[in-house]
Order: sequence, then structure tokens, then C-alpha cells
Amino acid sequence: MTHASAGHPAISTVSARLAPAPGLDILSRHEVARLRDASAGGLHPLLRRCALAVLTQGSDSDDARALLERYPDFDIQILQQDRGLKVELINAPAQAFVDGRIIRGVNELLHAVIRDIVYISAQMEAEAFDLDSSVGITHAVFEILRNARVLRANVDPNLVVCWGGHSIPRGEYDYTKQVGYQVGLRGLDICTGCGPGAMKGPMKGATIAHAKQRRRTNRYIGITEPGIIAAESPNPIVNHLVIMPDIEKRLEAFVRISHAIVVFPGGVGTAEEILYLLGILLHPANAAMPFPLIFTGPRESAAYFEQIDRFLRLALGDQVGERYRIIVDDPAAVGREVAKGVERVRSFRLDNKDAFFFNWALQIEQDFQVPFRPSHEAMAALNLHRDQPAHRLAADLRRAFSGIVAGNVKEEGMRAIERFGPFEIDGDREVMQALDAMLASFVVQQRMKLPGTRYEPCYRIRVD
Amino acid sequence: MTHASAGHPAISTVSARLAPAPGLDILSRHEVARLRDASAGGLHPLLRRCALAVLTQGSDSDDARALLERYPDFDIQILQQDRGLKVELINAPAQAFVDGRIIRGVNELLHAVIRDIVYISAQMEAEAFDLDSSVGITHAVFEILRNARVLRANVDPNLVVCWGGHSIPRGEYDYTKQVGYQVGLRGLDICTGCGPGAMKGPMKGATIAHAKQRRRTNRYIGITEPGIIAAESPNPIVNHLVIMPDIEKRLEAFVRISHAIVVFPGGVGTAEEILYLLGILLHPANAAMPFPLIFTGPRESAAYFEQIDRFLRLALGDQVGERYRIIVDDPAAVGREVAKGVERVRSFRLDNKDAFFFNWALQIEQDFQVPFRPSHEAMAALNLHRDQPAHRLAADLRRAFSGIVAGNVKEEGMRAIERFGPFEIDGDREVMQALDAMLASFVVQQRMKLPGTRYEPCYRIRVD
Amino acid sequence: MTHASAGHPAISTVSARLAPAPGLDILSRHEVARLRDASAGGLHPLLRRCALAVLTQGSDSDDARALLERYPDFDIQILQQDRGLKVELINAPAQAFVDGRIIRGVNELLHAVIRDIVYISAQMEAEAFDLDSSVGITHAVFEILRNARVLRANVDPNLVVCWGGHSIPRGEYDYTKQVGYQVGLRGLDICTGCGPGAMKGPMKGATIAHAKQRRRTNRYIGITEPGIIAAESPNPIVNHLVIMPDIEKRLEAFVRISHAIVVFPGGVGTAEEILYLLGILLHPANAAMPFPLIFTGPRESAAYFEQIDRFLRLALGDQVGERYRIIVDDPAAVGREVAKGVERVRSFRLDNKDAFFFNWALQIEQDFQVPFRPSHEAMAALNLHRDQPAHRLAADLRRAFSGIVAGNVKEEGMRAIERFGPFEIDGDREVMQALDAMLASFVVQQRMKLPGTRYEPCYRIRVD
Amino acid sequence: MTHASAGHPAISTVSARLAPAPGLDILSRHEVARLRDASAGGLHPLLRRCALAVLTQGSDSDDARALLERYPDFDIQILQQDRGLKVELINAPAQAFVDGRIIRGVNELLHAVIRDIVYISAQMEAEAFDLDSSVGITHAVFEILRNARVLRANVDPNLVVCWGGHSIPRGEYDYTKQVGYQVGLRGLDICTGCGPGAMKGPMKGATIAHAKQRRRTNRYIGITEPGIIAAESPNPIVNHLVIMPDIEKRLEAFVRISHAIVVFPGGVGTAEEILYLLGILLHPANAAMPFPLIFTGPRESAAYFEQIDRFLRLALGDQVGERYRIIVDDPAAVGREVAKGVERVRSFRLDNKDAFFFNWALQIEQDFQVPFRPSHEAMAALNLHRDQPAHRLAADLRRAFSGIVAGNVKEEGMRAIERFGPFEIDGDREVMQALDAMLASFVVQQRMKLPGTRYEPCYRIRVD
Repeated sequence: MTHASAGHPAISTVSARLAPAPGLDILSRHEVARLRDASAGGLHPLLRRCALAVLTQGSDSDDARALLERYPDFDIQILQQDRGLKVELINAPAQAFVDGRIIRGVNELLHAVIRDIVYISAQMEAEAFDLDSSVGITHAVFEILRNARVLRANVDPNLVVCWGGHSIPRGEYDYTKQVGYQVGLRGLDICTGCGPGAMKGPMKGATIAHAKQRRRTNRYIGITEPGIIAAESPNPIVNHLVIMPDIEKRLEAFVRISHAIVVFPGGVGTAEEILYLLGILLHPANAAMPFPLIFTGPRESAAYFEQIDRFLRLALGDQVGERYRIIVDDPAAVGREVAKGVERVRSFRLDNKDAFFFNWALQIEQDFQVPFRPSHEAMAALNLHRDQPAHRLAADLRRAFSGIVAGNVKEEGMRAIERFGPFEIDGDREVMQALDAMLASFVVQQRMKLPGTRYEPCYRIRVD
Repeated sequence: MTHASAGHPAISTVSARLAPAPGLDILSRHEVARLRDASAGGLHPLLRRCALAVLTQGSDSDDARALLERYPDFDIQILQQDRGLKVELINAPAQAFVDGRIIRGVNELLHAVIRDIVYISAQMEAEAFDLDSSVGITHAVFEILRNARVLRANVDPNLVVCWGGHSIPRGEYDYTKQVGYQVGLRGLDICTGCGPGAMKGPMKGATIAHAKQRRRTNRYIGITEPGIIAAESPNPIVNHLVIMPDIEKRLEAFVRISHAIVVFPGGVGTAEEILYLLGILLHPANAAMPFPLIFTGPRESAAYFEQIDRFLRLALGDQVGERYRIIVDDPAAVGREVAKGVERVRSFRLDNKDAFFFNWALQIEQDFQVPFRPSHEAMAALNLHRDQPAHRLAADLRRAFSGIVAGNVKEEGMRAIERFGPFEIDGDREVMQALDAMLASFVVQQRMKLPGTRYEPCYRIRVD
Repeated sequence: MTHASAGHPAISTVSARLAPAPGLDILSRHEVARLRDASAGGLHPLLRRCALAVLTQGSDSDDARALLERYPDFDIQILQQDRGLKVELINAPAQAFVDGRIIRGVNELLHAVIRDIVYISAQMEAEAFDLDSSVGITHAVFEILRNARVLRANVDPNLVVCWGGHSIPRGEYDYTKQVGYQVGLRGLDICTGCGPGAMKGPMKGATIAHAKQRRRTNRYIGITEPGIIAAESPNPIVNHLVIMPDIEKRLEAFVRISHAIVVFPGGVGTAEEILYLLGILLHPANAAMPFPLIFTGPRESAAYFEQIDRFLRLALGDQVGERYRIIVDDPAAVGREVAKGVERVRSFRLDNKDAFFFNWALQIEQDFQVPFRPSHEAMAALNLHRDQPAHRLAADLRRAFSGIVAGNVKEEGMRAIERFGPFEIDGDREVMQALDAMLASFVVQQRMKLPGTRYEPCYRIRVD
Repeated sequence: MTHASAGHPAISTVSARLAPAPGLDILSRHEVARLRDASAGGLHPLLRRCALAVLTQGSDSDDARALLERYPDFDIQILQQDRGLKVELINAPAQAFVDGRIIRGVNELLHAVIRDIVYISAQMEAEAFDLDSSVGITHAVFEILRNARVLRANVDPNLVVCWGGHSIPRGEYDYTKQVGYQVGLRGLDICTGCGPGAMKGPMKGATIAHAKQRRRTNRYIGITEPGIIAAESPNPIVNHLVIMPDIEKRLEAFVRISHAIVVFPGGVGTAEEILYLLGILLHPANAAMPFPLIFTGPRESAAYFEQIDRFLRLALGDQVGERYRIIVDDPAAVGREVAKGVERVRSFRLDNKDAFFFNWALQIEQDFQVPFRPSHEAMAALNLHRDQPAHRLAADLRRAFSGIVAGNVKEEGMRAIERFGPFEIDGDREVMQALDAMLASFVVQQRMKLPGTRYEPCYRIRVD
């Protein structure tokens, strides 16, 4: 079960035929055939990649390509058998096994991967989703979540989404555990992006709290997407894993099923998520809707949210501050605040006769639902002036932010900058300077890894 | 809550807003809208009819039209609400309620009705089923059953389908209870057409046996279709109700999920079902597959199966007798035989690595999957000669049988006979005479209600 | 597994080593040794007798001695084994088995028998019960019920005790099923004396109703005692069996755990139970306590309760009628009345901060707790005059009734009458005549089987 | 809810009436009266002390007296109420509550405290235990555990007892979590002394592992006794708490219910427990019985077990080493070794038809069951020479060890030494020197806190 190949140290692997996990394993013959189809157009490569991510849970590396290279002989096969579906693993990472038997949580996650890949592909093929309209996209999000049995009727609002960095210092990680513990003590479930760091800590803390509260049907929901799952492989405390088709649907899933969101310190990705959410919440149609949003971290990380708060108020006006609350170094206070917020959401939904399990009433504009590709042209078309509604500015700021990060650290973005020069942006100087300052401070806090040693803006403000 | 209207006696009704039943109540906004659409093309009339059938469970009448007329003010509305779906009943039959509260089993069945109507209509609308091919029809059957959560992985074969008349004498009804009791004592679940008579007795008997065996997760599956549900309204011991789109898919559902079939005495419908099943089992592709099939009844009903047995052997040859076993007046022997048969099915599926929950391997020809309409032309095209493979003859015999019954008792059929004269049939004289004899004896046994007092053949054998 | 011995027909038996039933099987080495002690002073004969009664569930005979003689080779042994207790049955009645495996409900009842016999004997041996005081007896009843896990905290009042004859005509039996069904539909549990007839019907009816209401943790409690269990062997729907040490503690157990009592027609035993209960309820200390008590039967049995009602009113005054309600031929009305009564009990217990699971507040005088032995002396000491409190008269009437029945039908009693002449009783002539009339009518209704053909009083009124 | 009193800082308290915890709350009126009896002979002081310990879970202090002084106004009252038992807390530590509601696990532990105190006192009062015989003591241990529902039939051996210090450095604590995690991954339950440190870490680790393995009915058993509970207050992951009457019964409970024992580094108490267990295991009657025993700690704590190993081998001979295995810094290896050992225990019990849930077959001599009081006389009577069976020497070594520790650190012991001079001990010089060396090294490792700064033997070897 251990083999060594040239170039990397001996790696322990296991081959096994898995017992099916409950509830996930009834496929039709068509579906099995589709999964087994390993040809170019088939689902097998996607399945293999996602399965490998699940099997390397707990691994430290967040380099997806390295992962695939580390297990070149890994394969997964689906067989239809007497008692249902059989999954066969060949040369799978040994860390998913205990004494030759797969960890049951890992097995469940594997079956969730299969379920979502089959379902989404079948729906896509049948053109069952209407992805050209905003309402159609929202319905697609709903149906994928429903198929994954994540939506529960007859359950009071109790789902707390936690966002934050997947690679954070020990102190911040311990803090996320403490917050998860306090949230769990109050009988609330946790949903995260299902990777390590701020996505794992709250679940671990909640697990201990739920045990103390003798809470048995807990939900630790992880929502991911194919491009992220390998880098942020789900830890098996996650007992509901959903693979959304892309980043935008993943973000929409988070905001539609959450009853409160807690944001821990993270990198630029976390900041971008904050802008995404505030862009939605600032929409006038959402003005009256309670949406508990808490930024929190330990004492030593206070600077992160101070910086963000300063930038948000400058760019979007002080009233943006009414949409979130910053709590420094006080997990119990976060727990109390979240519990109170969830209660407000409950009352609001009751008053408006809206579902508890899916926030249909939240207005999400189509431009938050379709991906932004940061070309020079697209960047030039952004409007970053403050003489417009705050939610529009927030939307374009998120895009600008996304583009600037790409121009600084992503291969494709950096090449474009090299070739065409800096992005030209149409915006307020003051706002742009604040953005610069924030990014520079992320570099100092080691939250953004630059190819060079110094942060240098990759854009210039257009002079009208 | 009691109102009287002209023309019929005072009828007790209840209006209520129902608490949602577990697991069935998450609909999207689209789906709710579709259900609420009461216009011509909408689902509301179908929903109203099926709901009324469920709500009149235990009612003696099997006249669907009478039922609808009895509750002219009845209506059902679907609302999307805080904790999920809300169902509102207006002037519903009081018998579904106890002291103003709906019986929980009835509530569950109502939600099952909603689930199936929504699902099938959505799939049909999306053209998700390929109903032009035999394989496609089988997949549709599979997917409807899966959506109804009737298919279970990880469960040993244990499903016994019971067929028989819905309107049978007391002695036969008590016998079906005793057989259900013996089957239940052996840890087996029951599936029937979910109406009264032979469809209810086995479930009641099994309920007592399951209680004695301390079996808690029992399945009492009822499979029906929109044309039958009103006449054979499901009794609420049924805890899994599936509404298949039509009779043929309902029959296919029975044979694909069963691990044994017990047939009690019934009317001509039961005889037709027997021909349907034997037509499938006699197909050479199914020759090696074990398929336990038992005909049984109390001492006083022995004649029914003797008659059928005699006809089958004459028409299809003695080897047909190897496909079933007749047991007279011995419920415990039926229980033992069923248990042994189920065990053989289990071994066979294991050997062939086939699923326990769906009999994919059973060959069902397309002509068993599409409906037969007994016109003079279609009847004339049948081949009822014995010089052909038995499974083909069985198929045409089933059709002939269906046509003859229509010509004798169904309005449309009788009118056609009046107008165009008797059906002309191309067949062996001896086989046709045996068919006549069997039908005549059904009349004597009061299993077939004729408009006149005497059975008279509505066909003549073509002289070549 | 079938053997025939001289003198009785072939009897089918099974020998088996049982898997332990859950929750009942942890005994200490001492306790196992005590059970295995088959010597004169040991528990083995009692165990064997009770076990045999459980194993012959469903048997028609109510003759305990015949039962023991029918299975002379039957034996039961207790072994302490790897996974807990092992019970070994030798030559046990085959009816307790299905295809060689014991019915799980029967297995559970067997373990309940073992549990109670061990517990009571251990407590008696340790002199842990104070049986000389009224309070001590009540505590013994409480502790035996608690040990049998019959008492449940955190559960709303929901226990309906049903009394009535164990040998009743078919019509009455069917009626008890219908009442059980209506009671079960209302979410109530059933407790009876656990034999056939009126003790089995309500449980069967409730089982069907509970299935329809999807009620899963149902309680079908059977309370018996060693002298009765063989004649009224528990049917395995009973899922909580308690063997009280004697008749009086059994009666006290019924009244202390019930939240309502329904009485069906029965024989003289049933009448005696009614007098027992009314003797308690008429005690001034119990005047304010709600205690729902319903006498009910089908149309054709109306005479039984009319007779009893007439006698009660004559002897105890019309106000006795306020303590019960007679409902003829209306199971749904019984269901409603019971549900309302249970609700009143709930309110009363809440107001008085008394436990739901045990009616501590009910005053039961010691003379209802200790057995009455009807000697000539004891009969002569009774006071059956109406110039005393009704509850005292009821108590002595119960004793007189018991003595008269003994003098008429019990071996010991009849011998005493033969030897010493009729009992001399000190009582009102009118009351005694009414008693005579009632007994005579029981004979006519075939509810009391006399050795001769005619009822003849076995007592005379003392002339002062 | 916060009050401040002179002499200590503001302490937050909560008064609350608790909802009853399931399954623990049916008391008779006698028992409630006994609990409410706060007079000298009553149970109330004991109840108050134990309840306070449970309520201060997670507290850092291990000073029982300080605890009581910190909450001088704390009180607990038991009320019998409508739905069962009500517990009323007055001025209870706020840390047991979340937003005014008690943590459910704490509530359960409180009810376990009540259960055990009532049970043991009732049994003692009734003289139900025979505490004068070895067998009687073992039965008392069995009955207390059974009453606490800790013994389970029908469950494969799976209970791992963990011993070790309650006050250990962070590194050792983290290591106990990792071992608990590895043990939990293998589907095993944890039992400890239920305090902090090595008693808490394994439970936390196992909780995470059990969540990953989707194991839902986990047992985290804590066994304590009234003298220890305050110093080592149970953390509420413990879901089965048992309060044994004294230290010796607590130790016997550990060894009789365990299927493997893991010992982490601790103080002198841990060493004494090791001697207790080896004294039993070296008894010839236990020679053939498998009893997995593993000493383990992180790399930096290797010295602790080296020291103990050296001493054991010198004193008891090398063959003692066959009874345990030392594993350094390898939690997965501990997990594997434990799992293998448990499997050996399972086979042994099956072969010997012994119970899984209680190790009846283990021979424990009476001198391990009765407490040792280390007077000068008792110490002089010990025989610490190696010319005797190892198990006898182990027994006396344990006593000597206990006495020496008392002479060095316990108030009473130190006073005796001051007054009467050092203990005179009859033993091998070499053994005693090794004992000295071991104790000295414990001081160096800060595992034994001396009043002075230097370890000085409090005994001298007798010169014969």
C-alpha cells in the first residue's frame, strides 16, 4: 500500500471498494454510465479531481496541481452493484483511511461529490436551468441546494455562515474555534467554504459545543465549487457538502441560506466577499431586510477590519457601517450578537411569510450573478465615482478590486499588465488611494503574497 | 363545519391549514406557482381530484365521479410560507380529521400527491423523460420512484407486492389480512395498489405482525395512478404513496421493485394483471431469473385460481405452471414460500451484481409498456394461435382479454359492439372457449358485474 | 421439533438459545444464580410458569394447569454469556416462533418476566419494601413500575387503562378494537391486563390508529400477576409487561398510572373491579380529583352496564353516577370523552403540581391494598347497610361480591358452603336482592359459568 | 445576576429552575424527601457540593474548598412537579449557563449526581450491599454502574479508560487530544476520571473523531467520587457520569468496565494507579487474561515512563514489562495497539463466555478493595522484600508509595512525621533507593509539589 516514485518521497496509498454512504447512492443506469465515461467530454476528470480533494482532507498543501501530481496513479470508478452503488478507489491517499477502512465522513463527502456532479451535469444537459435570467440563476441555486438536501423545512432559522482566510496564523485559527464554540452553544449550525483555516475552526468549535448541548442533528455545511475544492479540501466534520457549478452561484448559495454571516480576517478574497455582500445589502430593495453581519477577530488582528471599515466608509459613506458590526476579541459577544440577529431574521420572515430555508426575498442583481473577467476594457468601463448609488459603486468596486488583485498576483493578469500597461480606471482619486492603502497594509500583514517584495499599483486613474 | 346542500344529505366538512409533513415540502417559487395555476392547462384540477381521493380514505364508495360531486365545495390551495409549504383545505371531508386535526398519515399522503404531481409535470414539461424508447420508459419509472424516495439502497430484498380485488367478500378480505400478518412476521414490507380490499388487508395484517416483531421502519407502499386513485383511495397505513402517470408505468413499477408477488382473488382486472406478468416472465430473456409468484386464497375461493390455472395451462402450455405456485387456505405456507422466494432473489441479484432496489435486468418489451386501445381493428390484428412463442401469445391474450372485458362491461366498448357487431378474433377455438368458460365462471362467482344477467361473448372466431 | 407423547396430541415445540432483548439483560452473577436455583425455595418454578404463559400467547385456552401439562418437557435456563444474558428454551411452544426464530415481541416479554421476577424477589429478600403500611405498599407499587421503566417523565398524560372480560363474544371483541382505534387516533397509549378479549382488542385497534397517525413510540402496557398470567397470557403487541406481586398491587398499579379508565363488558371480575375503583373514588379525600371513567359496549351489550348502573345507584346512591359515564355503541364518542377527560387530568395535575406519571394524590385506604379472604367469619363481619359512607359500603360490597362469587364458582368457596352452610351476611335486604338480580342476569348473559345450571344464592341475610 | 461580596471579586451567578433531563428524573416521594433533608444526617450537603462541582465545569481551580467559598450563597433544591422532578438552582455559577439557559450537558450531569446520591444512600440505608466480602464489594460496584446505565449488553467491547494527570503542561494535554482522536477514529468510547487535563483531552479528541466517523451514540464516561469531584469537576462532554462511593470502588469500576487502559503522564497519583493495576494483573489467577495497558506521552515526556518502567522492572522483575507497552510520541500507534488489544479482549471473553460489559473474571483481592490508611504502624507492617510473589510486593509497594506521598505532601501525614519521626519500613534497600530516585525525578519534572524545595525521604529502612 506504500509506493515510492521518482521525484517525491514515498507516499502511502490504499485501494478499496467502499460501502455506500446512506441516502446518496441510488443512481440510474444512465447516470452510472455518464460517470464512467472518462473521455474528453465526460465527467470522469472532474470526478477524479474532486474526489482526490476530498480524500486529501486535512492535508496542509493548498496547491491543487501539486495534489494531482502527488497521486498520479489515483483513480475512482463507479460500479452499480447488488446493494446499490459501489465506489472503487485505486491508489487513494492513505490519510483518508484508518487501518484500511475509509473514514465514514470522507465516504459521505465522496458520495456527495458524485451526487452533485451527476445532478448538475444532468440538469445542464437537459437544459433544465434557465441561466440567462436572474430569476433562473436563483432557481438553479435553489435546486442544486435542494437536491443536496441542504434545505430543511420546519426548522427555525439557525444557519451561520462563516467566511475568512483559509491560511491564517494560529492565533486567528484558535479564535475561529472559540467563536464556533460560542455559536454552537447557542444551538446554531455552521456553514463555511469547507476548507481549512477560518472554514474549519468554527466547525470544530461548534462540534464541541454541540456535544455539550447534547445536540445531535447538527449541520456542518460546506459549499465549494470545482475550481476551489482542491485548494480548500473539505474536512470531514462537514456533513453536508455541496459543489456549486461556479464561484458566483457559490456566493449566492451562501447569502440565500444563511441567517447570519460572521467574517473572520482573511486575505484579499475575504475583502472581495465583503464588497460582494455589501453591494447586495446596499441595494434599496434590501434596505428593510435584517441581515446580521459581523466582522470579528482576535485582539492582534484588529487592524484588518479597521482598515476595511475605514475604506468602506470613505468609499460608500458612513451609512454602510449600519450593515455590519465589528467585534474585537470577544467570542461570547459574537455568539450573543449572532443569536439576536438570527432571531430578528426569524421575525422578519414570519412577518413577510417568507421561507426560513431560502432567502427568496433578497434582491440580487444579475451583475452579481455573472462572472467579471478583468480585461483592460472591462476595467476601463468601471465607474468608481461616488456620485452614484452606493450599491452600484460597491458592485464596481468589487470588480475593480478583483481586477487589481489579478493584475498583481494572478498569472494571466500580470501578463496583461506587462503587455498593455496598467489598467486605466475612471474613479475618484481619494477612493483609489484608500484602496491602495488597504492593499498595501494587507501586504504588510502578510495577507497578500506578491511576486515581488513591494506592492505597486497596477492601474492609473484616468484624467478626464 | 357541517353543511347540507340540496340533493344530497348533510355532509360533514372541515377547513384547515395543514402543518407541513416532513421531507416533502420544499418547493421552489416556480413549482408553487404551477400548483396554484387553476386554469385549463394547469395542474390544479388533477391536484384537487387526487387530494380528494386521499381525504376520503376509508370511504366505501368506489365511484370517482360521485366522490367529486359529493364535495362540490372542496378545494385545496398551496401557499409558500415561513416554515415551508402550507396546504390549505377548504370544505374537506371530515373523515380525514380527528377532532378537527388531520390524521397525520393522511397529511403525509396529501404531500406525496403534491410531490408527484409537481415532479412529473416538471419533468414532462422539460421533456426530461425519453418516452419513445423502452429503456427511456423504464428510466422514467425509475426516476419517479426515486424522487418519491421509494428506492432504498443498503436494504436486503424485502418487498412483497400484493394484487387482488378491491371489492371482495369478507372471507377473502380476512384471508388477505392473515397472509399480510404471516408475511409481516417474516420481516417483509408490503406494496399494493393502495386501495381497499386485497390492497388494504395485507397492510393491516403486516402492521400487527411488525408491531409484534418490534419492526419500526416499515414500508407500506401504495402505487396508484390518476385514473384509479379516486376509485381506490389510499388508506393511510400507506406510508409511501406514488402516483405513476399511467397504468402501464404503474404495472412496471410493481414488477421492478417487487421481490415477490402474491395474488389474491379479484375480478377480471386481477386476471389481466396475471397475464401481463406471465407475458413478461415467459420471455426467454427472463427464463433464468427467479421471480416468486404465488396465487392464494381461502378455501372457499379455490375455484378462482383453479379456473385461471386451467386456462393458462391450456393456452400457454403446462410449463407456464412453473412460474407460479397456488396455495389454498394456508397463510403460514404463503409466508414461508414468499420468504424463501425472496431469499432466492437476493442470491440471484448478488450473483449478477444487480441492484436490490430495482430489477433492471428484467426484460419488459415495449408492447407491455404502451397502452392497448381495443378497437375492432386492433382486436382483429391479434394473434391468438398457439403456434407462436408463449410470451407473445400471453401478450396478445392479455390484450384480447382487455378488449373482451371492455366489450362486455365498459361503456365505450359496449357501444362499439352495438354499432359494429362483435369483435372478429383470429385464434384457436379451444383457447377461446376456455377464455369464455373462465369469464362465465367469474360472472357466477360475482367477480364481474354484467349489465345483463348472463355472460354472452362479444366476439367471434374468424374462420380462415 | 415435533413430538407426540401418550395422552395428548402431537405438540410442536422448539428449543432455542435466544438473543438478548435490549435493555433488559444485565444481571449480576448473584441474580443469575438465583434464577437458576430450581430448588423448592428458588424462583425457577415461577419463572418457568410465567415464561410458558408468555410463550403460549395467542393460545385460546385459559386453563393454566392444562397449559403446564401440555408442555411437560418445557424448560427455561438462564446463562450469563459474552454479550450479556442468554436465555435457553427447551421444548418451547412452537407458536412463539416464526421459521425457528422467536418473535421479537415474545422475546422482549420473556425478558420482562425475568426482570420483574428477579427484581421483586431481590427487593423482598432485602426487605426493601415496607408492606405493613399503606404508604409503603404504594411505594412498592411505584418502585416495581419504575424498575420496569413504565413510568415516564416529560410525557403529557396519555395512558388509558382498559378493563373488561378476557372471554367475550365476537361482537364485543370487535367493539373493543374500534374503541382502541378511536383512542389511538387521539394519540393515547393503552394499558390493559394484557390477556385476550377486552385486553387485546384495544391494543390491536390502537396499533392501526397509531400507524395512521405515524406515532412511533407507542406504549402498550400489560400489567399482570403470577396467578393470572397463565390464564391470560400476554399478546406480544404488549411492549411493556409488568408482573406485579399480587392482585391488589396490580389493581393499584392500574389506577395510579392511568389518566382515564374505559370498562368494557366482562364477567363478575369486571364488576368487582368497578366496585374496587368506585370504593376509592367515593372516598371524600378524592372527591375533587378528576378521574375519567367510561363504561362502554356495543348496542347488544347495553344490558350489562344498565344492570350495573342500577345496582350501583340503589346501593350507593345516585351521586355515584357522577363518577362514570355510560356510552353505548359509539367508539368515536368514547374517544372524544377520554381525550377530554385526560385533558382535565392534565390541568388538575398541573394545578396541584403532582406528577403526570403516577397519581400520588389518590387516596387508597389500606383495606383496598390487602387481600380479602372470604371465610364465613370474614363474610359475617361485613357491613352492607346503607347507613354509612358510600365508600365504606362500596368496599364491603366488593368483599361481599368477591365472597359470593367464590361461594358459587370457586372450588374452595363451594366446599366451605357445603360444609358450613350459606354465608350469613349483615345487610340491607333491598341491596342484597339487587345484588342477586345482577348476578342472575350475568348467568343469563352467560358471563358467569355456574357448576349447576341455575344461580342460587350462597348466603342469607342475617335477621337482627 | 451579578453580585459582589466583600473579600472576593464580583462573581456572576444565575438562579434557575431546570427542565428535567431525560431518563434520570423519576424519584419517589421518599427519595425527594431524603434529598430535601438538609439536616446533619441528610444528603443535602453532599448534593450541594457535588452539584457545585458540576456547575463549575471548565473552571481552572482545583481547590474544592475555595470553590465552596466562592459561591457561599449557592443552593440547590429538588421539587416534585407535574412532569417529574424539578431542580431549582439558587445563585449558581454563571459559567454553566448560556444566555440564562443551562448547558444541556451540565443539566444531565446534575441529574446524574442526584441519581447516584439517591441510589447509593438508599442502598446503604437498606443495607443492600454486602461490603464485608470481596464478592459483595464487586457486586456493589456492579449495581451502582448498572443503576447509572453505564453497562450495556449487546455491545462489542469498545471502552478505553484513560488515566493521567489532571494538571499537565500544554504539550502533554495536546498529546492526550491526539490519542483520543486516534482512539475515536477506531470507533472506541472513552472513560476517564472526568476532570481536566488527561481526563478531558482524550474526550475532546474523540468527539472530533466520532463526528468524522459519523458515530452518534458515543459514550464519554466519567467516574468520580465525592472527595475528588470538586477538585476535578466533570467537563460536560462527559455524557455518563457516575459517582462511586469511594476511591477504591472508583478504581475497581475503571478496571472492570474497561477493555483497554491508556496511561498518560501524571503525578504521583498516576504512578499509584499503575501500581494498583499491576498488583492486580500480576496475580496468578489473572495471568492468562489479556488486559491491554499502554503508557504513552509526547517526546518531551518520555522520561516519566522510563523512570516508572525502570522502577517496576527492578522491583517486580522484568516479566512485569509484559503487562504494558510504552509508546512514545505516536498517537496513531496507540490507536492501533488499543484496537488490537480490544479485539483480543473480545476473543477472550467469547471463549470464556464472560460478559463484555463487566470483567467478572478479573481477580481483585480484598486488600485492593479496602482503603489503606498510612499510619506508622501500618507502614511498619509492609513487606517490601523481593522474596515474595510479585503481586503481593506490588500491593505493598502501592501502599508504601501512598504513605510516602502522604508523609511528604499531605497535611496529616506531614504532621505524623514531625511528631513520630520517619516511617520505618521493612524492605530491600535497592528497591527503596529506586523509589527515592523516582520520586526525586517527579519533583524535578514538577509533577509533585513539595512544601519545601527539595525532596527528602520521610522514611528509613529498618535494619534487621
